[in-house]
Amino acid sequence: MKLYTSYRAPNPRRVRWVMAEKGVEDVELIEVDIMAGEHRTPEYRARVGVPHVPALELDEGTTFSESIAICRFLESIYPEPNLFGHDAREQAVIEMWTRRCEFYLANPIMLNVRHSHPALAALEATQVPQVAQYNKLGAEKFMRTLDRRLAEHEFIASDRFTIADVVAVVGLDFARLIKYRPPEEFTHLARWLEASRARPAAKAGV
Amino acid sequence: MKLYTSYRAPNPRRVRWVMAEKGVEDVELIEVDIMAGEHRTPEYRARVGVPHVPALELDEGTTFSESIAICRFLESIYPEPNLFGHDAREQAVIEMWTRRCEFYLANPIMLNVRHSHPALAALEATQVPQVAQYNKLGAEKFMRTLDRRLAEHEFIASDRFTIADVVAVVGLDFARLIKYRPPEEFTHLARWLEASRARPAAKAGV
Ligand SMILES: N[C@@H](CCC(=O)N[C@@H](CS)C(=O)NCC(=O)O)C(=O)O
Ligand SMILES: N[C@@H](CCC(=O)N[C@@H](CS)C(=O)NCC(=O)O)C(=O)O
Repeated sequence: MKLYTSYRAPNPRRVRWVMAEKGVEDVELIEVDIMAGEHRTPEYRARVGVPHVPALELDEGTTFSESIAICRFLESIYPEPNLFGHDAREQAVIEMWTRRCEFYLANPIMLNVRHSHPALAALEATQVPQVAQYNKLGAEKFMRTLDRRLAEHEFIASDRFTIADVVAVVGLDFARLIKYRPPEEFTHLARWLEASRARPAAKAGV
Repeated sequence: MKLYTSYRAPNPRRVRWVMAEKGVEDVELIEVDIMAGEHRTPEYRARVGVPHVPALELDEGTTFSESIAICRFLESIYPEPNLFGHDAREQAVIEMWTRRCEFYLANPIMLNVRHSHPALAALEATQVPQVAQYNKLGAEKFMRTLDRRLAEHEFIASDRFTIADVVAVVGLDFARLIKYRPPEEFTHLARWLEASRARPAAKAGV
């Protein structure tokens, strides 16, 4: 298998992190330079269908995109450590938290950064300050929910580290590009963030 | 089981649609009036954790939110007809399309409507016209991708109707609130939309 990935980009980093947690070493990494537009070439679009990284190419030739679809697929081949849940009920709770972390934290942070960092102007038709601001406020609202959750739980979705934690840390780390830090009042979030960043797998893809 | 749902709201409608496709009749429906703020009461928040519908309450008492997590959980109990894929490879492709339809179509449409329909001002701290416009453009960009895909496929993700189709139709239908119609040039999208709206399950929750 081959993973189309971009150094530093948050969505590929989710997959790299999952691979590192699972010790996956037989996936070939193909670096795509998105700042140079390598994901917009006709070849890349023909292969993946959209100008996005990450994408996973299977040995039989099928290629698919979308970070979480790729991570879940990898879990079907490399089941341990389990990141998506053991049974339908646990899977539902983990998917719920993963989606919340993606919709209300990681994606808003990504939009805030893309619409405010000068170097990322290349990725948006127009940078819209109001879009940046709206998403910043949205992300901070959810940080409060997360801080409350982490006051009572070591990890976000379960009694162990899961894909929901990966999505949330990678999202928060991306904000470092614009030197953003979560409000200091969120002490439980800070404790969990520090512990997550100290995992060996946190180094993959950055 | 109990489903907390709101008549007309798009995220609960996804679940209602899935239940109708599967003929699920033993889930009790609890109507939550979001325009009257019933999802913001301390009771609701204590039960669900966030002020969102839909939420599913299991008989043992656990309640979880997030439409797609709920739909996938229902599929584990009511497997037929299959909407999420039979094996890991098919599941990945369906999840990829579901995510694309959600991130690049349904969510942008929802934000466009929420930031432009006067009656929905109650749901946002402030309606921001630039957020509406940015999301409208984003949704139309993805409609082009979808139209190309539907030129060669009857359904979005597979040779049968799946959860990806549910997410896309429900997303597009929500835009009817602001009398929005997809650009007429997208004829394959129009063909698929008409066929999807004609399914008996399309009537659930609207
Ligand atoms: N929903 C997609 C998002 C993929 C995505 O937006 N990737 C970024 C890099 S983190 C990208 O390809 N950016 C290129 C661009 O925006 O032109 C996923 O989860 O994989
Ligand atoms: N990501 C959630 C979205 C849930 C959501 O936003 N639901 C809307 C109704 S469609 C809601 O609860 N709105 C209430 C509000 O915004 O205050 C899901 O997929 O279920």
